[in-house]
Amino acid sequence: MGTSSAIPSRHRNHPSIGLKAFGEVILFDCGEGTQRQLIFAKISPMKITKIFISHLHGDHVLGLPGLIESLGFRGRTEPLDVYGPPGIFNLEIAINNLGSISKTFVTAFHEVEGRTIIDNDDYIIQAIKTHHNIYNLSYSIVEKKKPRFLRKKAIKLGVKPGTDFGKLHNGETVKVNNKIISPEQVLGKNRSGIKISYSGDTKPSDDLVDFVKDSNLLIHESTYQQADEDKANEHYHSTGRQAAEIAKKANVDRLILTHISSRYKNVDKIREEACEVFENTDIASDFLKIELNSN
Amino acid sequence: MGTSSAIPSRHRNHPSIGLKAFGEVILFDCGEGTQRQLIFAKISPMKITKIFISHLHGDHVLGLPGLIESLGFRGRTEPLDVYGPPGIFNLEIAINNLGSISKTFVTAFHEVEGRTIIDNDDYIIQAIKTHHNIYNLSYSIVEKKKPRFLRKKAIKLGVKPGTDFGKLHNGETVKVNNKIISPEQVLGKNRSGIKISYSGDTKPSDDLVDFVKDSNLLIHESTYQQADEDKANEHYHSTGRQAAEIAKKANVDRLILTHISSRYKNVDKIREEACEVFENTDIASDFLKIELNSN
Repeated sequence: MGTSSAIPSRHRNHPSIGLKAFGEVILFDCGEGTQRQLIFAKISPMKITKIFISHLHGDHVLGLPGLIESLGFRGRTEPLDVYGPPGIFNLEIAINNLGSISKTFVTAFHEVEGRTIIDNDDYIIQAIKTHHNIYNLSYSIVEKKKPRFLRKKAIKLGVKPGTDFGKLHNGETVKVNNKIISPEQVLGKNRSGIKISYSGDTKPSDDLVDFVKDSNLLIHESTYQQADEDKANEHYHSTGRQAAEIAKKANVDRLILTHISSRYKNVDKIREEACEVFENTDIASDFLKIELNSN
Repeated sequence: MGTSSAIPSRHRNHPSIGLKAFGEVILFDCGEGTQRQLIFAKISPMKITKIFISHLHGDHVLGLPGLIESLGFRGRTEPLDVYGPPGIFNLEIAINNLGSISKTFVTAFHEVEGRTIIDNDDYIIQAIKTHHNIYNLSYSIVEKKKPRFLRKKAIKLGVKPGTDFGKLHNGETVKVNNKIISPEQVLGKNRSGIKISYSGDTKPSDDLVDFVKDSNLLIHESTYQQADEDKANEHYHSTGRQAAEIAKKANVDRLILTHISSRYKNVDKIREEACEVFENTDIASDFLKIELNSN
């Protein structure tokens, strides 16, 4: 929804990334204007279930009050979960004091503690602290995939193709000829699905390499060109090439660079410098849409 | 900069009006996304001197934190004055608590008390409380025009055309042949210049008719069509026709309707209903630009 750094431009709004999966819309960061960007992206804000905030700089959070207010106007009743670094409760208080926010639903703010934040039937969301000038969280989401169903083995055990196959694949036991067949007998080993990682704002970080290992998609900030590496370092940001080095070391499939400083009228240089290190790199644009399909 | 009501749309951002005059940019209301709308409108936020807030509903104020933060990033040093209704100091506190706002300049918040807020050499800005479901201020700005310079009278008094004419017109005394000539001797009566008024959010109000009397331009909210007059009444808003009645009674030159509910895909009906009452009516669109010239 937004791909700028601190100051937006004609073409880039403040940071926000939307993930549509598992019947949910999950946001990562929520810069000013996100609620309107969602309209342009044709994503209903009512479907947002969770928002993960990387850090508490204004450009990453100032869309929250208006989004929450708009959800109230739209009559939302489902709760909204907002996760973020230490300080997120102060943000909650400030938002609630910001004016007349009419709340028809519960907004639950959560301070991220420990690595695993959510581990449900569909996915695992984790976070680690990385290296910005305030507390920054990088996030990953890993899809859980059902193990393969060992069809031949099931037939050998006397299970008939049909509903019993489905039950077993979904983890239920079935009864065949007075014999209990358990899922473990007919399922392959656990498999991981798609992994997507997002850096938030950070300097290059070895911890991040481990954390984003083997991601299908890494969305990494690249505020600066390589020529401005000193500025990147000073402000705890990354260059495009530094992000590409992370992508290469972490063996990811694809790298998308975002959080581009408005000082650059032309972003080709950032992309080229990154591609020299890691070829499958693109620069994000607002409303860029990427589809990832499980094998 | 923005012409929507509570929920923005593809075509309308949250409310904000910019006035360029007297070497200043003055904002009336500052909805979410105003800082980016300014980029599209090619108005430098660094030139904003004063912001007048009509009321503290989120759609009218949530652009303030991001705008203030961006001015800090741009290295502003000049102070910024923000005026608004009672409660504006709580907003100030909430904004300061909203995250890491880096301030390189002073933001002075002022609670509007009494009718006249600013009375300087160039203009008078006034406000009155009108009828919304929270404290709403309607504003007017009246240009001060120099009185006419009575050239013939000045020559008769022995003043020579040139710098002394300028001094007298600017209100300074001059000495001619050991005689003091005072401005009052050579100036006509005081004249009013352009008057612009803005309703903020309000029900139709007789007080407002008096307050906006003889405006060259009245910018009035018209959240609803006439068919939804009951909703307008319930939520302390106006229909387009009601705004037109204010314009007619107040003998204004021109009416611009704004704060249009996103429920209406087509706004022709609102305009037509208003034009039946007051012909010189238009519906605002984002980035609509109106030039007014002093006679």
